[in-house]
Amino acid sequence: MTDTATSAGPPRQTPRRGEFTLIDRFFTDLGPVRSDVRLGVGDDCALLTVPAQTDLAVSLDTLCAGVHFFPDCAPHAVGHKSLAVGLSDLAAMGATPAWATLALTLPRRDDAWVGDFARGFRELAEAHGVRLVGGDTTRGPLSVTVQVHGLVASGTAVRRSGACVEDLIWVSGTLGDAALALDRLRAGKSPDPALRARLERPTPRVTLGVALRGLASAMIDLSDGLAGDLGHILAASGVGALIDVSALPLSPAVRAQVRATANWTLPVAGGDDYELCFSAPARHADAIRALGAGCGCPLRVIGRVRPEPGLQLRDADGTTVNLASVGYDHFTTEP
Amino acid sequence: MTDTATSAGPPRQTPRRGEFTLIDRFFTDLGPVRSDVRLGVGDDCALLTVPAQTDLAVSLDTLCAGVHFFPDCAPHAVGHKSLAVGLSDLAAMGATPAWATLALTLPRRDDAWVGDFARGFRELAEAHGVRLVGGDTTRGPLSVTVQVHGLVASGTAVRRSGACVEDLIWVSGTLGDAALALDRLRAGKSPDPALRARLERPTPRVTLGVALRGLASAMIDLSDGLAGDLGHILAASGVGALIDVSALPLSPAVRAQVRATANWTLPVAGGDDYELCFSAPARHADAIRALGAGCGCPLRVIGRVRPEPGLQLRDADGTTVNLASVGYDHFTTEP
Repeated sequence: MTDTATSAGPPRQTPRRGEFTLIDRFFTDLGPVRSDVRLGVGDDCALLTVPAQTDLAVSLDTLCAGVHFFPDCAPHAVGHKSLAVGLSDLAAMGATPAWATLALTLPRRDDAWVGDFARGFRELAEAHGVRLVGGDTTRGPLSVTVQVHGLVASGTAVRRSGACVEDLIWVSGTLGDAALALDRLRAGKSPDPALRARLERPTPRVTLGVALRGLASAMIDLSDGLAGDLGHILAASGVGALIDVSALPLSPAVRAQVRATANWTLPVAGGDDYELCFSAPARHADAIRALGAGCGCPLRVIGRVRPEPGLQLRDADGTTVNLASVGYDHFTTEP
Repeated sequence: MTDTATSAGPPRQTPRRGEFTLIDRFFTDLGPVRSDVRLGVGDDCALLTVPAQTDLAVSLDTLCAGVHFFPDCAPHAVGHKSLAVGLSDLAAMGATPAWATLALTLPRRDDAWVGDFARGFRELAEAHGVRLVGGDTTRGPLSVTVQVHGLVASGTAVRRSGACVEDLIWVSGTLGDAALALDRLRAGKSPDPALRARLERPTPRVTLGVALRGLASAMIDLSDGLAGDLGHILAASGVGALIDVSALPLSPAVRAQVRATANWTLPVAGGDDYELCFSAPARHADAIRALGAGCGCPLRVIGRVRPEPGLQLRDADGTTVNLASVGYDHFTTEP
């Protein structure tokens, strides 16, 4: 429901008025008013209208304190990231964001925390025209679950399964920054603000994703690392790929780390970058480069689709880079 | 996303293959195949089609272990209830269930638990034609967040705001059973199975809710207790109500408890019944009674809408029942 009471003690029994106040205060008017929202926060369900000839794209993600973010992470960043990861999924399909629902679980009432969280969520929602239409607030260990809803002309969404042999493989932005920031935080060091922002306030590539419809043959967002996520495209498409690791786009900080350690783990297996990885026929290369420039988002060709299944990484001199050596073990079965 | 890897350590970095296996095994083919699902579990987003002249109704709810259910609650019941509470919200709008997404957070991999959970979820999903189209599985304290998606002819959803003076107020089923079962469990007693099922395996009144479109003027499902939830209808509609507590439909167990304690707390303020409460013009009374009989769901008139704001409860002899005396304090602000 869109305004469930917070409750304590298993399971909830009596209404908690404070909860309604919390929702009224922070979540009833979040994001731009949209004419396709017939009914937003405040009833048993939200009521939404999807235009004709349009598919609805939905994605649901949970971020747990202590697992997906440090418990002392700035609430503004948690608000931003909890929406950003969903918008990144919409981008990976080429869908235009429309609405979100939010389930927020808090150990105790903390209006200052919620206010900052809501501000981070709101700023990103407003930037992408997303209206918060419902949700739930509950008592429990800190976690955030967001469902995003996007719209895409019927049949034009970019799936993981369309990669063809000889397609070029592209990525946006730079790879490994979020993982490097995480390494530094775990080591008790403070990464510089730009690097830290790559971990805590990722930029969903929404404009780019929408623009790639009709050009990209398959697409995914890089949440779990290049090797794993590109692996999903390859598996879904029934193809393989050869990647030139020396072509991977790296920030100066990641490049320095790769050089110092002679190890490609950060850009190949580091998660949380939320860049787009896509395949496209070579004939679209000029159009794609122009599009990246138009979006202000660097795009780089990193390899090519080939018929042999699996992912192979090669260094500039043609040497094969072992996947296990970069922290990615395809056969790990223990979660 | 629809198949995010489980992760441990803040925040996730490397892909966990076991997670994909978990999703493949339990969640990729849950519920009936539906032609309106263009793309289900296994890509960045699910792709869904909403028919023309139809509104999409959505609701998101979280159940946390230790808050909304006992940590040792049977996983089959948790699976059932996590979908049931959402279907109950759809019922309260008169929407027909279509799809669900599921975010499952688990402290550790436990295939037996997940298998039973999935079975409980699946059985209810199949009973209502609901297809699981996506979700997320993460590592963390046990909790379940489900978004339900329903369809309703444009403009026909039953909102909370339509109650009119002189409308009769109805409830389905019986009230207070879940709260009584909870009281007994909290006291270390074992409620009889039928009573316990009312708490752990609530029946969403989906058929009834859909049938009430065009008859009910306002509707809500009773998750937080009659007084609080009816209060939402009254506030949204700008009206008040007079309820005859002696008319409340009670199971023999709750009736005995009310008599023994001379206290109406259980049926008036007890939560988790997931019955429907609705208002309707008196002229529809016969049609509504017939409809209840057709659905196999008892319906009872418990009072009437009146212009004076607020909720007043009266006993059979006309004595006012104090709301605070039944555990419902309208002015409580602390969640």
